[in-house]
Amino acid sequence: MKNKKMTYKDAGVDIDAGNRSVEKIKRLVSTTFNPNVVKGIGHFGAMYQIPLSGFKEPVLISSIDGVGTKLKVAIKMQKHDTIGEDLVNHCVDDILTSGARPLFFLDYLSLGKVLPEIVKEIVKGMVRGCKNANCALIGGETAEMTDLYQPGDFDLAGTIVGIVEKSKIIDGSNIQKGDKLIGLKSNGLHTNGYTLARKIFFDKHKLDINYFHEELNATVGDALLEVHRNYFPVIDPITKSFEIHGLAHITGGGIPGNVKRIIPEKMKILIDWYSWDKQSIFNEI
Amino acid sequence: MKNKKMTYKDAGVDIDAGNRSVEKIKRLVSTTFNPNVVKGIGHFGAMYQIPLSGFKEPVLISSIDGVGTKLKVAIKMQKHDTIGEDLVNHCVDDILTSGARPLFFLDYLSLGKVLPEIVKEIVKGMVRGCKNANCALIGGETAEMTDLYQPGDFDLAGTIVGIVEKSKIIDGSNIQKGDKLIGLKSNGLHTNGYTLARKIFFDKHKLDINYFHEELNATVGDALLEVHRNYFPVIDPITKSFEIHGLAHITGGGIPGNVKRIIPEKMKILIDWYSWDKQSIFNEI
Repeated sequence: MKNKKMTYKDAGVDIDAGNRSVEKIKRLVSTTFNPNVVKGIGHFGAMYQIPLSGFKEPVLISSIDGVGTKLKVAIKMQKHDTIGEDLVNHCVDDILTSGARPLFFLDYLSLGKVLPEIVKEIVKGMVRGCKNANCALIGGETAEMTDLYQPGDFDLAGTIVGIVEKSKIIDGSNIQKGDKLIGLKSNGLHTNGYTLARKIFFDKHKLDINYFHEELNATVGDALLEVHRNYFPVIDPITKSFEIHGLAHITGGGIPGNVKRIIPEKMKILIDWYSWDKQSIFNEI
Repeated sequence: MKNKKMTYKDAGVDIDAGNRSVEKIKRLVSTTFNPNVVKGIGHFGAMYQIPLSGFKEPVLISSIDGVGTKLKVAIKMQKHDTIGEDLVNHCVDDILTSGARPLFFLDYLSLGKVLPEIVKEIVKGMVRGCKNANCALIGGETAEMTDLYQPGDFDLAGTIVGIVEKSKIIDGSNIQKGDKLIGLKSNGLHTNGYTLARKIFFDKHKLDINYFHEELNATVGDALLEVHRNYFPVIDPITKSFEIHGLAHITGGGIPGNVKRIIPEKMKILIDWYSWDKQSIFNEI
Protein backbone atom coordinates (compact mmCIF):
# COMPACT_ATOMS: atom_id res chain seq x y z
CA MET A 1 0.00 0.00 0.00
CA LYS A 2 2.80 2.37 0.91
CA ASN A 3 3.99 2.77 -2.64
CA LYS A 4 0.59 3.04 -4.29
CA LYS A 5 0.34 6.51 -5.75
CA MET A 6 -2.55 8.55 -4.46
CA THR A 7 -4.63 10.42 -7.02
CA TYR A 8 -6.85 13.48 -6.83
CA LYS A 9 -9.85 11.18 -7.10
CA ASP A 10 -8.61 9.11 -4.11
CA ALA A 11 -8.44 12.39 -2.19
CA GLY A 12 -12.06 13.19 -3.07
CA VAL A 13 -11.43 15.82 -5.75
CA ASP A 14 -13.16 15.05 -9.04
CA ILE A 15 -11.14 16.86 -11.71
CA ASP A 16 -13.24 15.27 -14.48
CA ALA A 17 -16.41 16.76 -12.98
CA GLY A 18 -14.65 20.13 -12.90
CA ASN A 19 -13.73 19.83 -16.57
CA ARG A 20 -17.24 18.70 -17.51
CA SER A 21 -18.60 21.77 -15.71
CA VAL A 22 -16.35 24.05 -17.72
CA GLU A 23 -17.52 22.46 -20.97
CA LYS A 24 -21.17 22.84 -19.95
CA ILE A 25 -20.87 26.53 -19.17
CA LYS A 26 -18.49 27.68 -21.91
CA ARG A 27 -21.17 28.21 -24.53
CA LEU A 28 -23.61 29.79 -22.05
CA VAL A 29 -21.01 32.24 -20.81
CA SER A 30 -19.87 33.22 -24.29
CA THR A 31 -23.37 34.59 -25.02
CA THR A 32 -22.47 37.52 -22.73
CA PHE A 33 -19.40 38.48 -24.78
CA ASN A 34 -19.04 41.60 -26.91
CA PRO A 35 -16.23 42.82 -29.18
CA ASN A 36 -14.32 44.25 -26.19
CA VAL A 37 -13.72 40.73 -24.90
CA VAL A 38 -10.30 39.80 -26.29
CA LYS A 39 -10.18 36.43 -24.52
CA GLY A 40 -12.67 34.96 -22.06
CA ILE A 41 -12.94 31.80 -20.03
CA GLY A 42 -10.18 29.15 -20.12
CA HIS A 43 -7.11 31.39 -19.97
CA PHE A 44 -4.98 32.29 -16.98
CA GLY A 45 -6.35 35.82 -17.18
CA ALA A 46 -9.46 37.13 -18.94
CA MET A 47 -8.84 39.97 -21.41
CA TYR A 48 -11.09 42.98 -21.92
CA GLN A 49 -10.14 45.94 -24.07
CA ILE A 50 -11.03 49.25 -22.41
CA PRO A 51 -13.63 51.12 -24.50
CA LEU A 52 -11.91 54.51 -24.40
CA SER A 53 -14.17 56.34 -26.83
CA GLY A 54 -15.91 59.26 -25.11
CA PHE A 55 -13.61 59.20 -22.08
CA LYS A 56 -10.97 61.71 -21.04
CA GLU A 57 -10.18 60.42 -17.57
CA PRO A 58 -11.83 57.01 -17.28
CA VAL A 59 -12.14 55.58 -13.78
CA LEU A 60 -12.76 51.91 -13.10
CA ILE A 61 -15.41 51.28 -10.45
CA SER A 62 -15.27 47.81 -8.96
CA SER A 63 -17.07 45.82 -6.31
CA ILE A 64 -16.73 42.32 -4.92
CA ASP A 65 -19.62 40.67 -3.17
CA GLY A 66 -21.27 37.47 -2.11
CA VAL A 67 -24.88 36.42 -1.68
CA GLY A 68 -24.76 35.66 2.03
CA THR A 69 -27.02 32.97 3.39
CA LYS A 70 -29.63 33.61 0.69
CA LEU A 71 -27.81 30.64 -0.81
CA LYS A 72 -29.03 28.51 2.10
CA VAL A 73 -32.59 29.24 0.93
CA ALA A 74 -31.63 28.33 -2.65
CA ILE A 75 -30.12 25.07 -1.39
CA LYS A 76 -33.20 24.30 0.74
CA MET A 77 -35.44 24.98 -2.29
CA GLN A 78 -33.06 23.10 -4.62
CA LYS A 79 -33.47 26.09 -6.93
CA HIS A 80 -30.06 27.18 -8.17
CA ASP A 81 -30.84 29.27 -11.25
CA THR A 82 -31.50 32.67 -9.64
CA ILE A 83 -28.81 33.06 -6.98
CA GLY A 84 -26.26 33.97 -9.65
CA GLU A 85 -28.55 36.74 -10.90
CA ASP A 86 -28.80 38.03 -7.32
CA LEU A 87 -25.03 38.22 -7.19
CA VAL A 88 -24.63 40.06 -10.49
CA ASN A 89 -27.46 42.52 -9.77
CA HIS A 90 -26.07 43.22 -6.31
CA CYS A 91 -22.73 44.15 -7.88
CA VAL A 92 -24.32 46.14 -10.73
CA ASP A 93 -26.26 48.20 -8.18
CA ASP A 94 -23.12 48.76 -6.08
CA ILE A 95 -21.21 50.43 -8.91
CA LEU A 96 -24.32 52.14 -10.24
CA THR A 97 -24.21 54.37 -7.12
CA SER A 98 -21.11 56.03 -8.64
CA GLY A 99 -22.82 56.52 -11.99
CA ALA A 100 -20.76 53.72 -13.56
CA ARG A 101 -21.86 51.29 -16.21
CA PRO A 102 -20.71 47.67 -16.04
CA LEU A 103 -17.94 46.28 -18.25
CA PHE A 104 -17.25 42.75 -17.01
CA PHE A 105 -17.83 40.24 -14.22
CA LEU A 106 -15.90 37.34 -12.72
CA ASP A 107 -17.30 34.72 -10.35
CA TYR A 108 -15.96 32.45 -7.62
CA LEU A 109 -17.90 29.31 -6.81
CA SER A 110 -16.71 26.88 -4.14
CA LEU A 111 -18.65 23.71 -3.49
CA GLY A 112 -18.57 20.64 -1.30
CA LYS A 113 -18.96 18.65 -4.48
CA VAL A 114 -18.84 19.84 -8.09
CA LEU A 115 -22.11 18.69 -9.65
CA PRO A 116 -21.97 19.94 -13.25
CA GLU A 117 -25.77 20.30 -13.49
CA ILE A 118 -25.92 22.53 -10.41
CA VAL A 119 -22.92 24.59 -11.52
CA LYS A 120 -24.69 25.12 -14.83
CA GLU A 121 -27.88 26.34 -13.09
CA ILE A 122 -25.89 28.80 -10.98
CA VAL A 123 -24.06 30.09 -14.06
CA LYS A 124 -27.39 30.43 -15.92
CA GLY A 125 -28.51 33.00 -13.34
CA MET A 126 -25.26 34.92 -13.66
CA VAL A 127 -25.53 34.91 -17.44
CA ARG A 128 -29.09 36.31 -17.23
CA GLY A 129 -27.93 39.07 -14.87
CA CYS A 130 -24.92 39.90 -17.01
CA LYS A 131 -26.97 40.06 -20.21
CA ASN A 132 -29.48 42.42 -18.61
CA ALA A 133 -26.63 44.70 -17.55
CA ASN A 134 -24.61 44.52 -20.80
CA CYS A 135 -21.84 43.00 -18.78
CA ALA A 136 -19.48 40.29 -20.06
CA LEU A 137 -18.97 37.26 -17.81
CA ILE A 138 -15.31 36.81 -18.67
CA GLY A 139 -13.81 34.77 -15.86
CA GLY A 140 -14.49 32.42 -13.04
CA GLU A 141 -13.11 29.90 -10.63
CA THR A 142 -14.86 26.74 -9.51
CA ALA A 143 -13.33 25.04 -6.49
CA GLU A 144 -14.21 21.67 -4.97
CA MET A 145 -13.53 21.66 -1.24
CA THR A 146 -14.98 18.54 0.34
CA ASP A 147 -13.45 19.31 3.74
CA LEU A 148 -14.86 22.82 3.98
CA TYR A 149 -18.44 22.48 2.74
CA GLN A 150 -21.19 20.00 3.51
CA PRO A 151 -22.39 18.05 0.46
CA GLY A 152 -24.83 20.30 -1.43
CA ASP A 153 -23.50 23.44 0.22
CA PHE A 154 -21.56 26.07 -1.69
CA ASP A 155 -20.39 29.65 -1.50
CA LEU A 156 -20.65 32.15 -4.33
CA ALA A 157 -18.93 35.50 -4.81
CA GLY A 158 -18.13 37.74 -7.72
CA THR A 159 -16.43 40.90 -8.86
CA ILE A 160 -17.78 43.52 -11.20
CA VAL A 161 -15.70 46.14 -12.99
CA GLY A 162 -17.40 49.16 -14.53
CA ILE A 163 -16.36 52.50 -15.96
CA VAL A 164 -17.24 56.16 -15.49
CA GLU A 165 -15.74 59.49 -16.53
CA LYS A 166 -13.98 61.02 -13.52
CA SER A 167 -15.85 64.34 -13.66
CA LYS A 168 -19.16 62.47 -13.70
CA ILE A 169 -18.60 60.34 -10.62
CA ILE A 170 -21.53 60.51 -8.20
CA ASP A 171 -20.21 60.26 -4.65
CA GLY A 172 -22.48 62.33 -2.44
CA SER A 173 -20.06 65.25 -2.15
CA ASN A 174 -22.55 67.58 -3.90
CA ILE A 175 -25.34 66.80 -1.45
CA GLN A 176 -26.64 70.05 0.05
CA LYS A 177 -29.24 71.30 2.51
CA GLY A 178 -32.75 70.88 1.15
CA ASP A 179 -32.00 67.93 -1.14
CA LYS A 180 -34.78 65.38 -1.32
CA LEU A 181 -34.31 61.68 -0.56
CA ILE A 182 -36.24 59.40 -2.90
CA GLY A 183 -36.61 55.68 -2.28
CA LEU A 184 -37.10 53.09 -4.99
CA LYS A 185 -39.22 50.16 -3.93
CA SER A 186 -37.41 46.87 -3.59
CA ASN A 187 -39.07 43.67 -4.76
CA GLY A 188 -37.82 41.66 -1.81
CA LEU A 189 -35.00 41.41 0.69
CA HIS A 190 -32.22 42.00 -1.86
CA THR A 191 -29.27 39.83 -0.82
CA ASN A 192 -28.69 40.75 2.81
CA GLY A 193 -30.20 39.95 6.18
CA TYR A 194 -30.92 36.32 5.38
CA THR A 195 -29.45 34.85 8.55
CA LEU A 196 -31.95 36.97 10.46
CA ALA A 197 -34.85 36.44 8.03
CA ARG A 198 -34.33 32.66 8.02
CA LYS A 199 -34.30 32.62 11.82
CA ILE A 200 -37.63 34.51 11.89
CA PHE A 201 -39.38 32.41 9.25
CA PHE A 202 -37.97 28.98 9.96
CA ASP A 203 -36.90 28.95 13.63
CA LYS A 204 -39.26 31.41 15.35
CA HIS A 205 -42.41 30.83 13.27
CA LYS A 206 -41.45 27.33 12.19
CA LEU A 207 -42.89 27.94 8.71
CA ASP A 208 -42.31 25.41 5.98
CA ILE A 209 -40.44 26.78 2.98
CA ASN A 210 -43.45 25.86 0.83
CA TYR A 211 -45.98 27.55 3.13
CA PHE A 212 -48.09 30.06 1.17
CA HIS A 213 -47.89 33.41 2.97
CA GLU A 214 -50.97 35.50 2.19
CA GLU A 215 -49.49 38.93 2.87
CA LEU A 216 -46.48 38.13 0.70
CA ASN A 217 -48.75 36.46 -1.88
CA ALA A 218 -46.10 33.79 -2.37
CA THR A 219 -44.60 30.79 -0.64
CA VAL A 220 -42.01 31.69 1.95
CA GLY A 221 -39.28 30.16 -0.22
CA ASP A 222 -40.30 32.04 -3.36
CA ALA A 223 -40.57 35.33 -1.46
CA LEU A 224 -37.11 34.87 0.03
CA LEU A 225 -35.62 33.96 -3.35
CA GLU A 226 -37.13 36.99 -5.10
CA VAL A 227 -34.25 38.20 -7.30
CA HIS A 228 -32.24 41.21 -6.13
CA ARG A 229 -33.50 44.01 -8.35
CA ASN A 230 -31.22 45.51 -11.00
CA TYR A 231 -31.80 49.28 -10.71
CA PHE A 232 -29.72 50.14 -13.78
CA PRO A 233 -32.70 50.47 -16.20
CA VAL A 234 -34.37 52.95 -13.81
CA ILE A 235 -31.33 54.92 -12.68
CA ASP A 236 -29.28 55.17 -15.88
CA PRO A 237 -31.74 57.39 -17.84
CA ILE A 238 -32.30 59.57 -14.76
CA THR A 239 -28.58 60.25 -14.31
CA LYS A 240 -28.51 61.41 -17.93
CA SER A 241 -31.37 63.91 -17.51
CA PHE A 242 -31.05 65.03 -13.88
CA GLU A 243 -28.20 66.01 -11.62
CA ILE A 244 -28.24 63.37 -8.93
CA HIS A 245 -26.18 64.25 -5.86
CA GLY A 246 -25.91 60.84 -4.31
CA LEU A 247 -27.07 57.24 -4.66
CA ALA A 248 -27.16 54.58 -1.96
CA HIS A 249 -27.64 50.86 -2.50
CA ILE A 250 -29.73 49.47 0.36
CA THR A 251 -28.18 46.18 1.48
CA GLY A 252 -26.76 45.13 4.88
CA GLY A 253 -27.32 47.96 7.37
CA GLY A 254 -30.63 48.93 5.76
CA ILE A 255 -31.69 52.47 4.89
CA PRO A 256 -29.91 54.27 7.77
CA GLY A 257 -26.62 52.37 7.45
CA ASN A 258 -26.33 52.77 3.71
CA VAL A 259 -27.69 56.29 3.18
CA LYS A 260 -25.23 57.48 5.85
CA ARG A 261 -22.35 56.32 3.64
CA ILE A 262 -22.97 59.07 1.07
CA ILE A 263 -23.98 61.99 3.31
CA PRO A 264 -21.16 64.54 3.73
CA GLU A 265 -19.75 64.89 7.25
CA LYS A 266 -21.50 67.50 9.38
CA MET A 267 -24.75 66.99 7.45
CA LYS A 268 -27.74 65.07 8.72
CA ILE A 269 -30.50 63.29 6.92
CA LEU A 270 -34.07 63.16 8.18
CA ILE A 271 -36.19 60.20 7.17
CA ASP A 272 -39.94 60.21 7.73
CA TRP A 273 -40.44 56.51 8.39
CA TYR A 274 -44.23 56.91 8.12
CA SER A 275 -44.20 58.41 4.62
CA TRP A 276 -44.76 55.04 2.98
CA ASP A 277 -46.72 51.86 3.68
CA LYS A 278 -44.75 48.97 5.02
CA GLN A 279 -45.79 45.34 5.01
CA SER A 280 -46.65 44.29 8.55
CA ILE A 281 -44.12 41.48 8.34
CA PHE A 282 -41.39 44.12 8.77
CA ASN A 283 -42.66 44.90 12.26
CA GLU A 284 -40.86 41.77 13.37
CA ILE A 285 -37.43 43.00 12.43
CA MET B 1 -42.27 36.46 23.10
CA LYS B 2 -44.08 36.63 19.80
CA ASN B 3 -43.78 40.40 19.56
CA LYS B 4 -40.21 40.71 20.73
CA LYS B 5 -38.20 42.01 17.82
CA MET B 6 -35.39 39.76 16.67
CA THR B 7 -32.03 41.40 16.05
CA TYR B 8 -29.05 40.45 13.92
CA LYS B 9 -27.22 39.52 17.11
CA ASP B 10 -30.06 37.18 18.16
CA ALA B 11 -29.64 35.55 14.76
CA GLY B 12 -25.92 35.02 15.37
CA VAL B 13 -24.57 37.79 13.13
CA ASP B 14 -22.25 40.17 14.95
CA ILE B 15 -22.42 43.45 13.01
CA ASP B 16 -20.26 45.20 15.62
CA ALA B 17 -17.48 42.67 15.08
CA GLY B 18 -17.77 43.31 11.35
CA ASN B 19 -17.44 47.06 11.88
CA ARG B 20 -14.50 46.60 14.26
CA SER B 21 -12.79 44.48 11.60
CA VAL B 22 -13.22 47.23 9.02
CA GLU B 23 -11.67 49.78 11.39
CA LYS B 24 -8.74 47.49 12.11
CA ILE B 25 -7.89 46.94 8.46
CA LYS B 26 -8.60 50.40 7.02
CA ARG B 27 -5.19 51.84 7.86
CA LEU B 28 -3.36 48.66 6.83
CA VAL B 29 -5.10 48.52 3.47
CA SER B 30 -4.54 52.20 2.71
CA THR B 31 -0.77 51.60 2.74
CA THR B 32 -1.22 49.87 -0.63
CA PHE B 33 -2.82 52.93 -2.24
CA ASN B 34 -1.24 55.11 -4.94
CA PRO B 35 -2.46 58.29 -6.68
CA ASN B 36 -4.59 56.23 -9.10
CA VAL B 37 -6.86 55.19 -6.24
CA VAL B 38 -9.69 57.74 -6.33
CA LYS B 39 -11.65 56.08 -3.51
CA GLY B 40 -10.88 52.86 -1.67
CA ILE B 41 -12.52 50.80 1.03
CA GLY B 42 -15.86 51.84 2.58
CA HIS B 43 -17.71 52.90 -0.57
CA PHE B 44 -20.22 50.92 -2.60
CA GLY B 45 -17.67 50.69 -5.37
CA ALA B 46 -13.90 51.17 -5.26
CA MET B 47 -12.54 53.76 -7.73
CA TYR B 48 -9.29 53.44 -9.68
CA GLN B 49 -8.29 55.86 -12.42
CA ILE B 50 -6.85 54.07 -15.45
CA PRO B 51 -3.19 55.08 -15.97
CA LEU B 52 -3.47 55.69 -19.72
CA SER B 53 -0.01 57.14 -20.26
CA GLY B 54 2.01 54.97 -22.66
CA PHE B 55 -1.03 53.00 -23.85
CA LYS B 56 -2.73 53.08 -27.23
CA GLU B 57 -5.05 50.12 -26.84
CA PRO B 58 -5.02 49.18 -23.17
CA VAL B 59 -6.45 45.78 -22.29
CA LEU B 60 -7.52 44.83 -18.77
CA ILE B 61 -6.35 41.39 -17.71
CA SER B 62 -8.28 39.98 -14.77
CA SER B 63 -8.35 36.82 -12.74
CA ILE B 64 -10.42 35.58 -9.83
CA ASP B 65 -9.12 32.84 -7.58
CA GLY B 66 -9.25 31.18 -4.21
CA VAL B 67 -6.66 29.42 -2.08
CA GLY B 68 -8.33 26.01 -1.98
CA THR B 69 -7.81 23.86 1.07
CA LYS B 70 -4.41 25.39 1.77
CA LEU B 71 -6.59 27.39 4.13
CA LYS B 72 -7.32 24.20 6.06
CA VAL B 73 -3.57 23.99 6.79
CA ALA B 74 -3.53 27.64 7.86
CA ILE B 75 -6.47 26.97 10.18
CA LYS B 76 -4.80 23.84 11.60
CA MET B 77 -1.61 25.82 12.21
CA GLN B 78 -3.56 28.84 13.50
CA LYS B 79 -1.31 30.87 11.23
CA HIS B 80 -3.44 33.33 9.26
CA ASP B 81 -0.95 35.94 8.07
CA THR B 82 0.35 34.27 4.88
CA ILE B 83 -2.74 32.80 3.19
CA GLY B 84 -3.69 36.25 1.90
CA GLU B 85 -0.26 36.62 0.31
CA ASP B 86 -0.77 33.22 -1.37
CA LEU B 87 -4.00 34.52 -2.83
CA VAL B 88 -2.55 37.75 -4.17
CA ASN B 89 0.57 36.09 -5.60
CA HIS B 90 -1.56 33.42 -7.26
CA CYS B 91 -3.56 36.13 -9.02
CA VAL B 92 -0.48 38.23 -9.88
CA ASP B 93 1.10 35.16 -11.53
CA ASP B 94 -2.11 34.42 -13.44
CA ILE B 95 -2.19 37.78 -15.20
CA LEU B 96 1.60 37.89 -15.53
CA THR B 97 1.27 35.09 -18.12
CA SER B 98 -0.29 37.68 -20.46
CA GLY B 99 2.53 40.17 -19.84
CA ALA B 100 0.24 42.34 -17.68
CA ARG B 101 1.19 44.34 -14.62
CA PRO B 102 -1.23 44.52 -11.70
CA LEU B 103 -3.40 47.56 -10.98
CA PHE B 104 -5.72 46.59 -8.14
CA PHE B 105 -7.09 43.75 -6.05
CA LEU B 106 -10.37 43.01 -4.25
CA ASP B 107 -10.91 40.23 -1.72
CA TYR B 108 -13.85 38.16 -0.50
CA LEU B 109 -13.61 36.61 2.95
CA SER B 110 -16.45 34.55 4.39
CA LEU B 111 -16.18 33.14 7.89
CA GLY B 112 -18.13 31.07 10.36
CA LYS B 113 -17.46 33.84 12.85
CA VAL B 114 -15.91 37.27 12.26
CA LEU B 115 -12.97 37.46 14.68
CA PRO B 116 -11.42 40.88 14.03
CA GLU B 117 -7.92 39.69 15.02
CA ILE B 118 -8.00 36.84 12.51
CA VAL B 119 -9.45 39.03 9.77
CA LYS B 120 -6.60 41.45 10.39
CA GLU B 121 -3.99 38.68 10.07
CA ILE B 122 -5.50 37.51 6.79
CA VAL B 123 -5.54 41.07 5.45
CA LYS B 124 -1.92 41.57 6.55
CA GLY B 125 -0.86 38.82 4.14
CA MET B 126 -2.85 40.37 1.31
CA VAL B 127 -1.34 43.77 1.99
CA ARG B 128 2.18 42.28 1.87
CA GLY B 129 1.42 40.57 -1.44
CA CYS B 130 -0.15 43.70 -2.91
CA LYS B 131 2.76 45.93 -1.87
CA ASN B 132 5.27 43.54 -3.44
CA ALA B 133 3.30 43.66 -6.68
CA ASN B 134 2.59 47.43 -6.70
CA CYS B 135 -1.07 46.55 -6.55
CA ALA B 136 -3.68 48.56 -4.62
CA LEU B 137 -6.01 46.60 -2.35
CA ILE B 138 -9.06 48.74 -3.03
CA GLY B 139 -12.05 46.68 -2.06
CA GLY B 140 -13.30 43.74 -0.10
CA GLU B 141 -16.25 41.95 1.37
CA THR B 142 -16.29 40.20 4.73
CA ALA B 143 -19.27 37.93 5.32
CA GLU B 144 -20.27 36.13 8.49
CA MET B 145 -22.12 32.91 7.70
CA THR B 146 -22.57 30.84 10.83
CA ASP B 147 -24.76 28.28 9.08
CA LEU B 148 -22.31 27.60 6.25
CA TYR B 149 -18.92 27.40 7.98
CA GLN B 150 -17.74 25.62 11.09
CA PRO B 151 -16.39 27.96 13.78
CA GLY B 152 -12.82 28.86 12.83
CA ASP B 153 -13.34 27.89 9.18
CA PHE B 154 -13.39 30.45 6.41
CA ASP B 155 -13.13 30.78 2.64
CA LEU B 156 -11.01 33.36 0.87
CA ALA B 157 -11.09 34.51 -2.75
CA GLY B 158 -9.99 37.56 -4.65
CA THR B 159 -9.88 39.30 -7.99
CA ILE B 160 -6.94 41.04 -9.59
CA VAL B 161 -7.17 43.53 -12.44
CA GLY B 162 -4.05 44.39 -14.43
CA ILE B 163 -3.22 46.16 -17.65
CA VAL B 164 -1.25 45.47 -20.83
CA GLU B 165 -0.96 47.06 -24.25
CA LYS B 166 -2.94 44.98 -26.76
CA SER B 167 -0.02 44.47 -29.17
CA LYS B 168 2.16 43.24 -26.31
CA ILE B 169 -0.17 40.54 -25.00
CA ILE B 170 1.62 37.22 -24.56
CA ASP B 171 -0.83 34.41 -25.32
CA GLY B 172 1.17 31.55 -26.80
CA SER B 173 0.07 32.23 -30.38
CA ASN B 174 3.69 32.99 -31.41
CA ILE B 175 4.98 29.66 -30.14
CA GLN B 176 6.82 27.85 -32.93
CA LYS B 177 8.71 24.66 -33.61
CA GLY B 178 12.05 24.64 -31.82
CA ASP B 179 11.05 26.96 -28.98
CA LYS B 180 12.57 26.04 -25.63
CA LEU B 181 10.53 25.42 -22.49
CA ILE B 182 12.13 26.82 -19.35
CA GLY B 183 10.85 26.03 -15.87
CA LEU B 184 11.25 28.30 -12.86
CA LYS B 185 11.62 26.47 -9.60
CA SER B 186 8.72 26.76 -7.23
CA ASN B 187 9.35 27.14 -3.51
CA GLY B 188 6.51 24.84 -2.53
CA LEU B 189 3.13 23.56 -3.63
CA HIS B 190 1.81 26.96 -4.73
CA THR B 191 -1.91 27.07 -3.90
CA ASN B 192 -3.29 23.93 -5.51
CA GLY B 193 -3.40 20.24 -4.78
CA TYR B 194 -3.86 20.63 -1.04
CA THR B 195 -6.75 18.22 -0.65
CA LEU B 196 -4.45 15.55 -2.10
CA ALA B 197 -1.32 16.71 -0.23
CA ARG B 198 -3.17 16.84 3.10
CA LYS B 199 -4.50 13.32 2.52
CA ILE B 200 -0.94 12.05 1.89
CA PHE B 201 0.68 13.79 4.86
CA PHE B 202 -2.05 13.61 7.45
CA ASP B 203 -4.23 10.60 6.54
CA LYS B 204 -1.86 8.20 4.79
CA HIS B 205 1.36 8.91 6.72
CA LYS B 206 -0.41 10.21 9.82
CA LEU B 207 2.24 12.91 10.29
CA ASP B 208 1.71 15.61 12.85
CA ILE B 209 1.61 19.13 11.40
CA ASN B 210 4.61 20.00 13.62
CA TYR B 211 6.65 16.94 12.54
CA PHE B 212 10.06 18.04 11.25
CA HIS B 213 10.55 16.50 7.81
CA GLU B 214 14.25 16.12 7.02
CA GLU B 215 14.03 16.12 3.24
CA LEU B 216 11.85 19.23 3.31
CA ASN B 217 14.05 20.77 6.02
CA ALA B 218 10.94 22.15 7.67
CA THR B 219 7.93 21.04 9.68
CA VAL B 220 5.15 19.60 7.56
CA GLY B 221 2.96 22.59 8.40
CA ASP B 222 5.58 25.17 7.49
CA ALA B 223 6.42 23.36 4.23
CA LEU B 224 2.75 23.25 3.24
CA LEU B 225 2.26 26.93 4.09
CA GLU B 226 5.29 28.04 2.08
CA VAL B 227 3.99 31.18 0.33
CA HIS B 228 2.98 30.91 -3.33
CA ARG B 229 5.87 32.56 -5.16
CA ASN B 230 5.35 35.89 -6.91
CA TYR B 231 7.15 35.50 -10.26
CA PHE B 232 6.70 39.13 -11.28
CA PRO B 233 10.21 40.28 -10.19
CA VAL B 234 11.78 37.50 -12.31
CA ILE B 235 9.51 37.63 -15.34
CA ASP B 236 8.90 41.35 -15.77
CA PRO B 237 12.51 42.32 -16.68
CA ILE B 238 12.78 39.28 -18.99
CA THR B 239 9.66 40.25 -20.95
CA LYS B 240 11.25 43.67 -21.48
CA SER B 241 14.53 42.28 -22.90
CA PHE B 242 13.45 39.06 -24.62
CA GLU B 243 10.58 38.03 -26.85
CA ILE B 244 8.74 35.47 -24.80
CA HIS B 245 6.25 33.41 -26.80
CA GLY B 246 4.22 32.00 -23.97
CA LEU B 247 3.99 31.81 -20.19
CA ALA B 248 2.16 29.22 -18.11
CA HIS B 249 1.37 29.46 -14.41
CA ILE B 250 1.69 25.99 -12.88
CA THR B 251 -1.24 25.45 -10.51
CA GLY B 252 -4.02 22.80 -10.54
CA GLY B 253 -3.30 20.35 -13.37
CA GLY B 254 0.45 20.65 -12.89
CA ILE B 255 3.00 21.13 -15.69
CA PRO B 256 1.15 19.14 -18.40
CA GLY B 257 -2.28 20.63 -17.70
CA ASN B 258 -1.12 24.22 -17.59
CA VAL B 259 1.53 24.27 -20.32
CA LYS B 260 -1.05 22.73 -22.66
CA ARG B 261 -3.23 25.83 -22.24
CA ILE B 262 -0.80 28.04 -24.17
CA ILE B 263 0.40 25.64 -26.88
CA PRO B 264 -1.22 26.36 -30.27
CA GLU B 265 -3.47 23.63 -31.63
CA LYS B 266 -1.71 21.03 -33.79
CA MET B 267 1.56 21.64 -31.91
CA LYS B 268 3.01 19.30 -29.33
CA ILE B 269 5.33 19.91 -26.44
CA LEU B 270 7.97 17.42 -25.31
CA ILE B 271 9.02 17.51 -21.70
CA ASP B 272 12.09 15.61 -20.49
CA TRP B 273 10.91 14.72 -17.01
CA TYR B 274 14.43 13.61 -16.06
CA SER B 275 16.14 16.90 -16.89
CA TRP B 276 15.90 18.14 -13.32
CA ASP B 277 16.18 16.69 -9.81
CA LYS B 278 12.95 16.09 -8.01
CA GLN B 279 12.49 15.62 -4.28
CA SER B 280 11.65 11.99 -3.58
CA ILE B 281 8.49 13.06 -1.79
CA PHE B 282 6.97 13.74 -5.22
CA ASN B 283 7.18 10.07 -6.07
CA GLU B 284 4.08 9.63 -3.98
CA ILE B 285 1.88 11.83 -6.10
